[in-house]
Amino acid sequence: MAVKDYKYEFFNVTFPSEYVAQVEINRPQKLNAFHEPMWVNIGAIFRRLSYDPDVRVVILTAAGDRGFTAGLDVQQASTGGVLAQPDAKAGSVDPARRAVAIKRHMQEFQDDISAIEKCEKPVIAVLHGISFGLAIDMTTCCDIRLCAKDTRFSVREVEIGLAADIGTLTRLPKANVPLSWVKDVCLTARDFTADEALRVGFVSGVYDSKAATLQKALEVAKVLATKSPVAVQGTKEVLNFSRDHNVADGLNYIKVWNASMLQTKDVEDAMLAGLKKTKPTFAKL
Amino acid sequence: MAVKDYKYEFFNVTFPSEYVAQVEINRPQKLNAFHEPMWVNIGAIFRRLSYDPDVRVVILTAAGDRGFTAGLDVQQASTGGVLAQPDAKAGSVDPARRAVAIKRHMQEFQDDISAIEKCEKPVIAVLHGISFGLAIDMTTCCDIRLCAKDTRFSVREVEIGLAADIGTLTRLPKANVPLSWVKDVCLTARDFTADEALRVGFVSGVYDSKAATLQKALEVAKVLATKSPVAVQGTKEVLNFSRDHNVADGLNYIKVWNASMLQTKDVEDAMLAGLKKTKPTFAKL
Amino acid sequence: MAVKDYKYEFFNVTFPSEYVAQVEINRPQKLNAFHEPMWVNIGAIFRRLSYDPDVRVVILTAAGDRGFTAGLDVQQASTGGVLAQPDAKAGSVDPARRAVAIKRHMQEFQDDISAIEKCEKPVIAVLHGISFGLAIDMTTCCDIRLCAKDTRFSVREVEIGLAADIGTLTRLPKANVPLSWVKDVCLTARDFTADEALRVGFVSGVYDSKAATLQKALEVAKVLATKSPVAVQGTKEVLNFSRDHNVADGLNYIKVWNASMLQTKDVEDAMLAGLKKTKPTFAKL
Amino acid sequence: MAVKDYKYEFFNVTFPSEYVAQVEINRPQKLNAFHEPMWVNIGAIFRRLSYDPDVRVVILTAAGDRGFTAGLDVQQASTGGVLAQPDAKAGSVDPARRAVAIKRHMQEFQDDISAIEKCEKPVIAVLHGISFGLAIDMTTCCDIRLCAKDTRFSVREVEIGLAADIGTLTRLPKANVPLSWVKDVCLTARDFTADEALRVGFVSGVYDSKAATLQKALEVAKVLATKSPVAVQGTKEVLNFSRDHNVADGLNYIKVWNASMLQTKDVEDAMLAGLKKTKPTFAKL
Amino acid sequence: MAVKDYKYEFFNVTFPSEYVAQVEINRPQKLNAFHEPMWVNIGAIFRRLSYDPDVRVVILTAAGDRGFTAGLDVQQASTGGVLAQPDAKAGSVDPARRAVAIKRHMQEFQDDISAIEKCEKPVIAVLHGISFGLAIDMTTCCDIRLCAKDTRFSVREVEIGLAADIGTLTRLPKANVPLSWVKDVCLTARDFTADEALRVGFVSGVYDSKAATLQKALEVAKVLATKSPVAVQGTKEVLNFSRDHNVADGLNYIKVWNASMLQTKDVEDAMLAGLKKTKPTFAKL
Amino acid sequence: MAVKDYKYEFFNVTFPSEYVAQVEINRPQKLNAFHEPMWVNIGAIFRRLSYDPDVRVVILTAAGDRGFTAGLDVQQASTGGVLAQPDAKAGSVDPARRAVAIKRHMQEFQDDISAIEKCEKPVIAVLHGISFGLAIDMTTCCDIRLCAKDTRFSVREVEIGLAADIGTLTRLPKANVPLSWVKDVCLTARDFTADEALRVGFVSGVYDSKAATLQKALEVAKVLATKSPVAVQGTKEVLNFSRDHNVADGLNYIKVWNASMLQTKDVEDAMLAGLKKTKPTFAKL
Repeated sequence: MAVKDYKYEFFNVTFPSEYVAQVEINRPQKLNAFHEPMWVNIGAIFRRLSYDPDVRVVILTAAGDRGFTAGLDVQQASTGGVLAQPDAKAGSVDPARRAVAIKRHMQEFQDDISAIEKCEKPVIAVLHGISFGLAIDMTTCCDIRLCAKDTRFSVREVEIGLAADIGTLTRLPKANVPLSWVKDVCLTARDFTADEALRVGFVSGVYDSKAATLQKALEVAKVLATKSPVAVQGTKEVLNFSRDHNVADGLNYIKVWNASMLQTKDVEDAMLAGLKKTKPTFAKL
Repeated sequence: MAVKDYKYEFFNVTFPSEYVAQVEINRPQKLNAFHEPMWVNIGAIFRRLSYDPDVRVVILTAAGDRGFTAGLDVQQASTGGVLAQPDAKAGSVDPARRAVAIKRHMQEFQDDISAIEKCEKPVIAVLHGISFGLAIDMTTCCDIRLCAKDTRFSVREVEIGLAADIGTLTRLPKANVPLSWVKDVCLTARDFTADEALRVGFVSGVYDSKAATLQKALEVAKVLATKSPVAVQGTKEVLNFSRDHNVADGLNYIKVWNASMLQTKDVEDAMLAGLKKTKPTFAKL
Repeated sequence: MAVKDYKYEFFNVTFPSEYVAQVEINRPQKLNAFHEPMWVNIGAIFRRLSYDPDVRVVILTAAGDRGFTAGLDVQQASTGGVLAQPDAKAGSVDPARRAVAIKRHMQEFQDDISAIEKCEKPVIAVLHGISFGLAIDMTTCCDIRLCAKDTRFSVREVEIGLAADIGTLTRLPKANVPLSWVKDVCLTARDFTADEALRVGFVSGVYDSKAATLQKALEVAKVLATKSPVAVQGTKEVLNFSRDHNVADGLNYIKVWNASMLQTKDVEDAMLAGLKKTKPTFAKL
Repeated sequence: MAVKDYKYEFFNVTFPSEYVAQVEINRPQKLNAFHEPMWVNIGAIFRRLSYDPDVRVVILTAAGDRGFTAGLDVQQASTGGVLAQPDAKAGSVDPARRAVAIKRHMQEFQDDISAIEKCEKPVIAVLHGISFGLAIDMTTCCDIRLCAKDTRFSVREVEIGLAADIGTLTRLPKANVPLSWVKDVCLTARDFTADEALRVGFVSGVYDSKAATLQKALEVAKVLATKSPVAVQGTKEVLNFSRDHNVADGLNYIKVWNASMLQTKDVEDAMLAGLKKTKPTFAKL
Repeated sequence: MAVKDYKYEFFNVTFPSEYVAQVEINRPQKLNAFHEPMWVNIGAIFRRLSYDPDVRVVILTAAGDRGFTAGLDVQQASTGGVLAQPDAKAGSVDPARRAVAIKRHMQEFQDDISAIEKCEKPVIAVLHGISFGLAIDMTTCCDIRLCAKDTRFSVREVEIGLAADIGTLTRLPKANVPLSWVKDVCLTARDFTADEALRVGFVSGVYDSKAATLQKALEVAKVLATKSPVAVQGTKEVLNFSRDHNVADGLNYIKVWNASMLQTKDVEDAMLAGLKKTKPTFAKL
Repeated sequence: MAVKDYKYEFFNVTFPSEYVAQVEINRPQKLNAFHEPMWVNIGAIFRRLSYDPDVRVVILTAAGDRGFTAGLDVQQASTGGVLAQPDAKAGSVDPARRAVAIKRHMQEFQDDISAIEKCEKPVIAVLHGISFGLAIDMTTCCDIRLCAKDTRFSVREVEIGLAADIGTLTRLPKANVPLSWVKDVCLTARDFTADEALRVGFVSGVYDSKAATLQKALEVAKVLATKSPVAVQGTKEVLNFSRDHNVADGLNYIKVWNASMLQTKDVEDAMLAGLKKTKPTFAKL
């Protein structure tokens, strides 16, 4: 595997195993709270991983013991950032023009976070400790969510006077977790535990520690890395498409998708390997 | 809090706490079974609560020990009501004209029940005892469902020869409870218990008694009542919108929604209160 | 009940009780693996059951002890079948023309499996043992899924280099089972047990053996067979419609549907039977 | 035909022929400009006509020689009405709370105008002279648009600093008139003539005078009044449904709709009359 | 070109030019009125043409001088056919059961006519003389509509007491002809001429006679027959898809579609032929 | 107006009037044929204009007398570009991997062209002479289309063996031009004239020369530049939204949009100017 030059101020991108990338949020001194350069960076990273032929699966994790992220860096956001109130001369600010500015800003913010979902490769989230606000926005963009038993989740936005707008309110009801529960946690902004998250299905596995969770994620990632990337990436694409369309459209889409993808040599190689009990090797994608 | 003049024959509307309204179905001598004046009333009540600036959250409950509601008052419905068969001169009734009459009637019935879902404020359902038919139609319109452990649920309609048409068959599959289970209870019309309802996620909490359930609902309601109403009502609106639209549309909607809502002073007040560990006060909405 | 002449090479169709049909996949020597004649047959069977007035509910099961189905008969598919690679003269095959051939083939395959979902009568799946690949495609088309505790499920397709295209990736996310789990099992192609299937809600009941599962299915089927077929079939239709449409469209649909269906004498008969505690009899449909 | 008691301050409702209602906007001294009581009235009128069995078709017209309507009564709207700016103490108005007030107000305004489209009976618009702003909002809700050759149309809203929000921007692109033209007239707020309206298809007939246009509308209305109301009203419903849904959904809808409507005796009577060259009579609806 | 064995009682299928099929409705003695065997046949014919590699374009025309079709054979339909009233014992017919029977019947009728639209090859309609009812249902399924100047069109269904249910009300509003005009002709059931049809865009060419129209259709068909079938059939597919989906979905679909189709050798051959001014030859599809 | 530094190799961006930008395609020696750097550039230009507060309307035009654009630079595309066939070692190229490469390439190409439609400011297309292929893709993204009488249009893609994939097949059916005509020109790839384009509504004005067309575009642009940018940009946004959504969604969207936009001071200023017959000035946006 070629050494990759993925250098970002607030993220460590490493390659713990063949075809596996690990993206680590790295601002632990601020509990990995997000300010604008960070979402610009995460967008750039996932757009690049999406087309990188040396990557077949991505793990999203965060540095430090205290948690995945405290969410938006509220202090920064309120002084010059996205939540900054107009200054003393506020009376002169036209609400329509301010609305347009907010909309444009939010568009970019959403686009950067949505890059995680649009990444062609599966993304596995590894959560631990404090996992507030943006932690939910970002990990609802991931395909598989695992967490440590010490994780404290919260859809925090109501606490600071706003409806979550970077994706939680849109994607969480589509994660197939009970809607009565979704509304409870989104409306009250209360904390919920790893066990509760597992019970409702928000995460699909809880492990003893951050390290154990990462270990499990790496195991799953290694499995995915050995499969045909044509099959794996097609599966992610069609599952996401189906979430957003009716059954008739979904069936038609997989049909048109597979019209080219079934022509891959991977099918022959995979079937042969299955019969011969050998390990198939698949070309890069 | 101003004394409110909410007088309705079959409902008690009270205000147990600041910004909290409680709507109690009140026809216990008939096990709270519904006839036409009742759905007309419930529609009127929720349309009014929706815009009432003194209300930030609503609890829906029912009088008496026996149950939440036995559903449609079948006897009344079959003699002059919605299920009345055409009389002796039936041979002269044109099936198309009768179909139009049924459609118009159902439209009004649906509109009144849907008013619960359209209410801008969150609605918490408190179920107990017999909770049949309309109990499911009405509470799938609510945001959070809690119940007493003695609750006996049933999607009863098949038992009286019809497919449920006031919302259960439309909203229950969207409550993110397993579809195999949904079909089981809707097709067989069998009873299910509070525990089963919790396990599949139809309710998000089971409590020892009706009183304990109401107590819990009131606690949640008080929490919601202290939050920014701009944030809480926006969260409800966007969650409901997202249930019915794809992710791209949902993200766009919250963006346009928040273009005005983020201009609220509530954000500043909430953030400040968070930093100062004080309790913010928010203007009415 | 009239003796029905349902003769198919790879399926046994029997009528274990009044109004109940049982469709048994019957190629146990190949672990019920599917080749083309089988999906053509299953399509034909369910299209016929859909309109058969002597049938009100269908049970789908499979012969033998080893399992429900191993999925696609890969060997057959790769030699002359749907996954056959172009022969030695492959260089001369135009990828666009091959894509069209694949698309047409897949259309027919999908149509035959979708016939299970389109069957107007409820379908109860009884799974046991090996239940791979097509087992999931087919049973996500069923309304209620029950299984024996020895069942080993797997969304197998990634293992043979392709994204599942006969319905699993489209319908499984709509079965209201947690999406993080859906992606895990679809991307990794790993096995999962009956208990796991129950916990996430993919099946709604697990029983001690294949025989016990079938016994339970038969009990449910008999219950459905005694209900008004107008009510039962309308309930299935509207639940499936609602899965694929938003709430406003769903409410409108049930309104138009019931405009004719509420005119049935079944309503009167069912209500009367309810009052008199007798067993109603409903005309065929 | 029974004398109907349709009394409204700003509208004349008359019955020029059997089963034909004529709704005349009646505030000619203000060029029929609309203030709030008027849209509340028009909503009430069309909701009532929708279910009135003595009405099978409606003509919408306006009093006076100068025009159909000048649109919103801007003066009234800006002093206490929908466009009123917050007063001197504006600094104290929270933009989010004002946004909610605007939204609620607009909802009611839209609902009243949409009542024209939702009216179960076909509505024929007769336009003449000044036909600005709301004239387009209202008549895009009508089924058939006819106009006098002196008509001066304008999508006026941009002229007063806003995007048209009572329906024009939503319905005009769906009237199947060329989109390049739609954008031209909506973005520039320029006038366009009857001839231009006919050329692009916005109206389907231009006549010499208001009287001649009304005469033509009455002729069409009389034709519609003689047809089966089951057939006519079903045709309107399905055309509107189809505008908003894809072809598969549209075909399904007409199928379920006609499942009851084809049972009408009107079909038999209409066919018989066709064969016998007589005039059929249809029961009220 | 191989001689094709397309034999159908009420249709002549011929091959006037290489890759061009002509389907002629052939019941001129009854003005080509349709009864059930005819729609079963037309469905079968178009399903077969869709996959026939010797066919790249289809012309739909009708025998005799009097017209394309008078529509449904009303006499036959009312005596044992789709519009048959229940017999004297009508009182005993359950309206719900009759509704189901109507729905099933209509489903088959719709499916057979929709086969024209689903045919993978472009279909050119050649209309002349009487073109009523089903003439519109069928030709809105066609891609290009041409007609003789003597054509008399009518959306006839209202005349016989019903809303058109075989596709006209669904597809005509999507043919991008002015909606005010669509509603006029659908609601009044009035005749309209070839010139009117051209003016509103329902047909895209009017010619002096049936023969001249057919001649023009043949010219267009020959042009299409010389183009790459991959390009032509993809163009039809994507245009139909786009009619039924939003722009984002349409752009995605053509992208996935062309992922395989752009790999065709036809692109290279077509470009080379363009440069060399030669006539390319394309393989069958 | 500040001098803007818009420098692009193949485009001239000028500012002929206050708030009006003119984007001129500038590769006349190649008939303005497009290669990859050009679509990358046009994407960048329109993304920048979209947020530029000194721009309120954009005119898209092309250099030289011969035409707007000949479309894709086929020679370049086939040698190393988007249509390049795999080289001699083609046998080794996996069709699935090539499909992925095509898809990614097309995504970028589409995104750059769609930037024209997504530009928040209205875009007026000025077409002349040869206007093939991409000319249609690009101008269906524009809001208003004007052309010189010498314009020769063609949806050219079928001629080079492919279905148009940069937007024509998706957006042209939504331009509300008759579908029979759309299919004719898309399937045959034939030329059509300015007069034909006007008759079907593809363009909304035809002028004597390129200069006269540009003159007219400039007049319209100047009108738009004087209007409230809040009103104009909202109108564009809502018209585009409505094209892609049903009426209920469209009405809701404009309601939420205007909740903030109606708070603009522009409304007050515009109304005042209307009353005083003065020219309002609006702040930048």
